Amino acid sequence: MEVGICKQEMAQKKKNAVLVDGVILNGPITDSKAGEKFVEEAFKVIMKEVIQKADDVTQKVCEWRAPETLKQILDLEMRDTGESHQELLQLCQDVIQYSVKTSHPRFFNQLYAGIDYYSLVARFITEALNPSVYTYEVSPVFLLVEEVVIKKMIEFIGWEEGDGIFNPGGSVSNMYAMNLARYKFCPEIKEKGLSSLPKLVLFTSEESHYSMKKAAAFLGIGTENVYFIKTDERGKMIPEELEKQVQRARKEGSAPFLVCATAGTTVLGAFDPLDKIADICEKHGLWFHVDASWGGSALISRKHCRLLHGIHRADSVAWNPHKMLLAGIQCCALLVKDNSGLLKKCYSAKAAYLFQQDKFYDVSYDTGDKSIQCSRRPDAFKFWLMWKALGTTGLEERVNRALALARYLVEEIKKREGFQLLLEPEYANVCFWYIPPSLRQMEDGPEFWQKLHQSLQYAQKKCGRKEWPEGFGTATS
Amino acid sequence: MEVGICKQEMAQKKKNAVLVDGVILNGPITDSKAGEKFVEEAFKVIMKEVIQKADDVTQKVCEWRAPETLKQILDLEMRDTGESHQELLQLCQDVIQYSVKTSHPRFFNQLYAGIDYYSLVARFITEALNPSVYTYEVSPVFLLVEEVVIKKMIEFIGWEEGDGIFNPGGSVSNMYAMNLARYKFCPEIKEKGLSSLPKLVLFTSEESHYSMKKAAAFLGIGTENVYFIKTDERGKMIPEELEKQVQRARKEGSAPFLVCATAGTTVLGAFDPLDKIADICEKHGLWFHVDASWGGSALISRKHCRLLHGIHRADSVAWNPHKMLLAGIQCCALLVKDNSGLLKKCYSAKAAYLFQQDKFYDVSYDTGDKSIQCSRRPDAFKFWLMWKALGTTGLEERVNRALALARYLVEEIKKREGFQLLLEPEYANVCFWYIPPSLRQMEDGPEFWQKLHQSLQYAQKKCGRKEWPEGFGTATS
Repeated sequence: MEVGICKQEMAQKKKNAVLVDGVILNGPITDSKAGEKFVEEAFKVIMKEVIQKADDVTQKVCEWRAPETLKQILDLEMRDTGESHQELLQLCQDVIQYSVKTSHPRFFNQLYAGIDYYSLVARFITEALNPSVYTYEVSPVFLLVEEVVIKKMIEFIGWEEGDGIFNPGGSVSNMYAMNLARYKFCPEIKEKGLSSLPKLVLFTSEESHYSMKKAAAFLGIGTENVYFIKTDERGKMIPEELEKQVQRARKEGSAPFLVCATAGTTVLGAFDPLDKIADICEKHGLWFHVDASWGGSALISRKHCRLLHGIHRADSVAWNPHKMLLAGIQCCALLVKDNSGLLKKCYSAKAAYLFQQDKFYDVSYDTGDKSIQCSRRPDAFKFWLMWKALGTTGLEERVNRALALARYLVEEIKKREGFQLLLEPEYANVCFWYIPPSLRQMEDGPEFWQKLHQSLQYAQKKCGRKEWPEGFGTATS
Repeated sequence: MEVGICKQEMAQKKKNAVLVDGVILNGPITDSKAGEKFVEEAFKVIMKEVIQKADDVTQKVCEWRAPETLKQILDLEMRDTGESHQELLQLCQDVIQYSVKTSHPRFFNQLYAGIDYYSLVARFITEALNPSVYTYEVSPVFLLVEEVVIKKMIEFIGWEEGDGIFNPGGSVSNMYAMNLARYKFCPEIKEKGLSSLPKLVLFTSEESHYSMKKAAAFLGIGTENVYFIKTDERGKMIPEELEKQVQRARKEGSAPFLVCATAGTTVLGAFDPLDKIADICEKHGLWFHVDASWGGSALISRKHCRLLHGIHRADSVAWNPHKMLLAGIQCCALLVKDNSGLLKKCYSAKAAYLFQQDKFYDVSYDTGDKSIQCSRRPDAFKFWLMWKALGTTGLEERVNRALALARYLVEEIKKREGFQLLLEPEYANVCFWYIPPSLRQMEDGPEFWQKLHQSLQYAQKKCGRKEWPEGFGTATS
């Protein structure tokens, strides 16, 4: 691949070659000029095929192919010899063609709502720099940025001080919180583990995200020890039910340690009554975590932040700017009210090879001992650059717009025949049924629901409320 | 921001405006032309300041500033109003200037060894597409790519079949393995948790990565229940010591369930004797995990794969192509020999809103229920594109070159006065001391080591072997 090097140069190089174990050490390993050119060519493809088409409704969201078909179309095989830049560029084209354009205006799915050019640029920068945010010496700028972003998010939560860490997802944030709550409850668990302890029990609503169950399994607490609290007709946790369940757990001899409220549930977009739940947590001495992975962004809006009234009383909050705010996957923070170093105490392993305490700078900037990861991506940076570009008011407009769009959709659904709104949304989730003409005159009942599901080509598993049947329509604007 | 729209058009738009909650719904929210231009301008900056300078030794690795100074130089504050594209581009320049260029030839640190243009392009593509690899319908290409990459990695491990998942890091891979081993040992733990169970005990060498301790703490097993096995003078686990410790644990009434061997330790780059450890695991019915996060890449080299002799007998393997192979952080796979769906059984939460079982394609392609995450990045893709570009032989050359460079460094150290090699390396870690002239005639002993540390401006914490003192030099080529 030594393009552009003349024969004489080659001969000279060969003469001076340092050969070790059959490898020429001082020869060029990569043709950097050709590499740079490839990056430039590929960027043009990305620009044309992804970014410029991102808001073009005349383009397809996705060239859909079933798995077996797509395998035949794409040249997936990894071979002994490499391929040419031209072949690789074609491959990139193909990958893009058959991938979902998640920023397309007609792509309706959880998490997505278009493209943000600023966070995208930030992501390009960090991919090019390829940092790891464990120590200040390796990631000076990105660690300072993370600090300032966490501080700002804490401000919006309403805490006077706090701590936090960006991590690979809302599910992981919830795990962090669960482990922190457990550590606070009984610090010895870190060393001694859970065996020979009474059952630890935690509480979350039956509409909460499935990650609470995953977290309980992963952390050795057990899914049975997640007590799911009943919700009202709007999907909000019923505080009186929580109180009952805490008392039940105590009577059973278990050890309640954590309540997880949800601010913006996955399906209905419901907000649990944080203030009342905080009262119960205070009364019983329980850690109060709010999973605001989805709903947290409403904190930015002066109009809608009331949805999270009481969040300042939480001990920890999960908030994903990669959802409504469009910061790009993954951008998730776990925020903690404690500022006495709980996060570090709970997570430290004090690896001597990485986190020396006698460096030439203030090592409190090293975040590695707050994390379950070693290498960690600088996810705060894309949120920061986006915030710099749009300002708080720009972010606020984004939230207000999402909720206004939901409002608009609701009014349209009400007007249109064959659509049935499930409930008045309080957030950006709009839940509705589409009733095909043949069923519009039918009476409500098991038979109706069965036929409705069949009509949607979905088999109906359960008809009762609270277990949302598959195929149930929910739009997240 | 409605650049380029004339007044008449504006007036017409205003007339047709759909106003909901004070938000004009059908107005343009972002000027996409300006956004695209910004991306193009920023790309030029990235190209010039990061990518082109990546292999230029005349450039600085980093414009170093202490935290407090850097805070004053950078405009970190996030304000109410946004900033202009010009200001943002300057900001990007500043961020790059004060960041570490991790692909710089003079940057010696764990994980890094230069730039790979192909994985970088893959990363740009995925950032632009912003996918999440939980279901085939959202990430058709990336899930097929993950499948084919995992299959290929399994081939190099030497298993006939298997399963796996890309995840946010080697530390997380080790957690996955620990939880899988526990699930295999006693599936009820997923539901019931660890309380009222005997102590679960796992084994790993005293030179293993600190993530094993973190994992034991996080999973509720407890750091005390990680039994650290003595290593020989080369940093390899001593199988006889493992045997003794397993027996000790049994005598204590604990429940041994997992042995973690390390292929490429963090400091010395040592490879545990996998075959002998496999014998012990078989004898005692223990899950055999190999943390090959660092050493796994040697599998690609026909010359060096013998370092991992016996790895095919492992039940699970952690392998990070983002290290020696340069795939970019994060690119980490946890690979599992089991092909009966253990990964899914262990990790599933069966969320009805996401993982419907009655979709219009084969849902076995949906990976969400194998993961602790919900949203997940398509990290396999960058490894795949790099592999396509270089071929297996290109990857092999990369490994061979790294080890030849290490060999070369060793010979240079031996020749040069004032340098003292700690031991002959078997991998790319070269451990040595630099002895300043004033200490070269001094006798070995506590005083010598104290002075040596002082001379490196590092306080010496412990002088004994096996607890690597801070400031100890290790170069990872």
